[in-house]
Amino acid sequence: MKIIKKAILPKGFQANGISCGLKRSGGLDLSLMVSSVPAKTACMFTVNTIPAAPVILDKEYYAGNKLFRAIIANSGNANCFTGKKGLKDAQLMSESVAAGLGIKKEEVLVASTGIIGKPLDIEKITRAVPGLITSLSARGIDTAKKAIMTTDTFSKEITARLQIGGQTVTVSGIAKGAGMIAPDMATMFVFLFTDALVSQSALEKALRESVDGSFNRVTVDGCMSTNDTVILMANGLSGNAAITGGKDLRVFTDALNFINLELAKMLVLDGEGASKFIEIKVKNARTVIEAKKVALQIANSNLFKCAMYGENPNFGRIVASVGASGIDIREQDLKIKLGSLKKKKIDVEVRLSRGDAECVVYTSDLTPRYIKINAEYS
Amino acid sequence: MKIIKKAILPKGFQANGISCGLKRSGGLDLSLMVSSVPAKTACMFTVNTIPAAPVILDKEYYAGNKLFRAIIANSGNANCFTGKKGLKDAQLMSESVAAGLGIKKEEVLVASTGIIGKPLDIEKITRAVPGLITSLSARGIDTAKKAIMTTDTFSKEITARLQIGGQTVTVSGIAKGAGMIAPDMATMFVFLFTDALVSQSALEKALRESVDGSFNRVTVDGCMSTNDTVILMANGLSGNAAITGGKDLRVFTDALNFINLELAKMLVLDGEGASKFIEIKVKNARTVIEAKKVALQIANSNLFKCAMYGENPNFGRIVASVGASGIDIREQDLKIKLGSLKKKKIDVEVRLSRGDAECVVYTSDLTPRYIKINAEYS
Repeated sequence: MKIIKKAILPKGFQANGISCGLKRSGGLDLSLMVSSVPAKTACMFTVNTIPAAPVILDKEYYAGNKLFRAIIANSGNANCFTGKKGLKDAQLMSESVAAGLGIKKEEVLVASTGIIGKPLDIEKITRAVPGLITSLSARGIDTAKKAIMTTDTFSKEITARLQIGGQTVTVSGIAKGAGMIAPDMATMFVFLFTDALVSQSALEKALRESVDGSFNRVTVDGCMSTNDTVILMANGLSGNAAITGGKDLRVFTDALNFINLELAKMLVLDGEGASKFIEIKVKNARTVIEAKKVALQIANSNLFKCAMYGENPNFGRIVASVGASGIDIREQDLKIKLGSLKKKKIDVEVRLSRGDAECVVYTSDLTPRYIKINAEYS
Repeated sequence: MKIIKKAILPKGFQANGISCGLKRSGGLDLSLMVSSVPAKTACMFTVNTIPAAPVILDKEYYAGNKLFRAIIANSGNANCFTGKKGLKDAQLMSESVAAGLGIKKEEVLVASTGIIGKPLDIEKITRAVPGLITSLSARGIDTAKKAIMTTDTFSKEITARLQIGGQTVTVSGIAKGAGMIAPDMATMFVFLFTDALVSQSALEKALRESVDGSFNRVTVDGCMSTNDTVILMANGLSGNAAITGGKDLRVFTDALNFINLELAKMLVLDGEGASKFIEIKVKNARTVIEAKKVALQIANSNLFKCAMYGENPNFGRIVASVGASGIDIREQDLKIKLGSLKKKKIDVEVRLSRGDAECVVYTSDLTPRYIKINAEYS
């Protein structure tokens, strides 16, 4: 497997990103990603019970059909808590793309991120869509990846090339963070593209495994978003023998796992205001679920995160979090190892002495800059 | 009922607070509170599964006996995650008080607060105990209340005088916060004293109801402590007819509820780095438990707390929290009212349009000062 730290679209995909005026800064805020042929698609969405309008719409489309041609995504407005107008606006986004591409609106997924509870200025989007389509290109992913960013300070992107079923297959992904990051799911957009030919059930299985091992193991602030969306489109243009299970699916899933874990780490690295990247490994738990529970309890502790920011080896914050997780552990069975705090990357190892299961989660520190960003965000 | 915003010890109680050298600052750090006769006592402790040594010891004493004479409490060191030495040290604290007062060690409750994971300098305490006892007085509560403070910026204290069973009964309380405040229980010490004559079961019932309605409804940072301790001592010296149930118990419990809610609000008001005091009322929920769940999800959201600090009316942070709480609510059934953000006290009202239950919780904002305090705390 060859890894390229840049998004390079697989065969048959094109993209584009422009500024349509949603961001007051005038920055890029509207993205379109298109497959030249219908692509088998797997989706996962936030479990927040007040999802944004585009999430509601996508779920509806996805319930009726698994073949998609395009994703339209905007930043600058989440189109959430916007009532009937919001739902209509999300639909208008898919309709305008469908009209321009000569396809059905049910083939166009929609994603929005930004402020919650403000009506979307939909005309800015619909007016911009024809131009967005005209300039689609394989290299357009470089503007598309920027147009989904909000408080992100860098674009998250990666590509893997690997051999499956006698052919070279490409899997590439872009993502955006950077606050409101917490399981389940990690709060973000992740758009993944592959030219692999994969059966629908294998595609969904691979995505589920991969999201569980990546985006559901990172947390920035423990806050769950209303707009999280992960989309994986597979257009089958690489010419490989179809992946339906067995070794080929394992190879494909491993590549997806790698890509998504890298993107997830980038989300944490670019966590709002973050000055530290923290890896928390919980070992010798009874089950992976238990290990994850303890690791996330530590990762979401403001007191722990402040201590990390202060390069303060206050491991009492870890002890209190382990106990707060509710597992019935004896003090003498808990061992904590804290790596150097002077470095940008901090390693925390917690041993529970009660089994063989382990789990790693990633988080950032809590800094005055996080507060500044979110005190002013609107 | 007459309320005095100061701790005035009821009949038969004495206290004292001194500096024994645990705090590097030289500040007051050792408190003793004593009843002249055995007092019926109700206790509640943290549910953290790695409790501090004094919590382990108190639970042991409390399991064997409900009559206590004294509480010894230190700040500057939590005596938590300190192994066998920690347990022995907690026992030495009770033994030294017992020896000085001529009572049994099992009649002396122990509480410690401060840094976790550092051995206690027990000799500083045992050396100081004789002097601590010699200077006990009714007015000594004024130094005792200060010697339990850590990052608190003011002492929390209150007294109620009321008529029960034909006599004037006094109930007074002192508390300390100010970080690591979260249900269950609110992370703190609360020591309550009354000269009322109350049956053991009535005393325990009153304390449970009261803690549920007060300390379990405040949160500063969602972090659960290892040392939380609430102790209510009733020495029966007021001469009232014993409170065992019925109207008298209601009157007593109402007074306790009032006192504990006031102390709980003081904890929030003095939350680490807090610049705002926020009241979150969730109305029209199906059950109180549901209302409380939603209110705490909002109260513990870093994004919400940052917006409050920034006086930023970003009610999207509230929407996202309601949805993250997991209740199955429709967008159109959610109504949010946000009071003026310019004031020190901010009122948030959330209506769920699905029932008649409601719950109020209190929290503070998240500020750069919280981070500074906890980045440097050790």
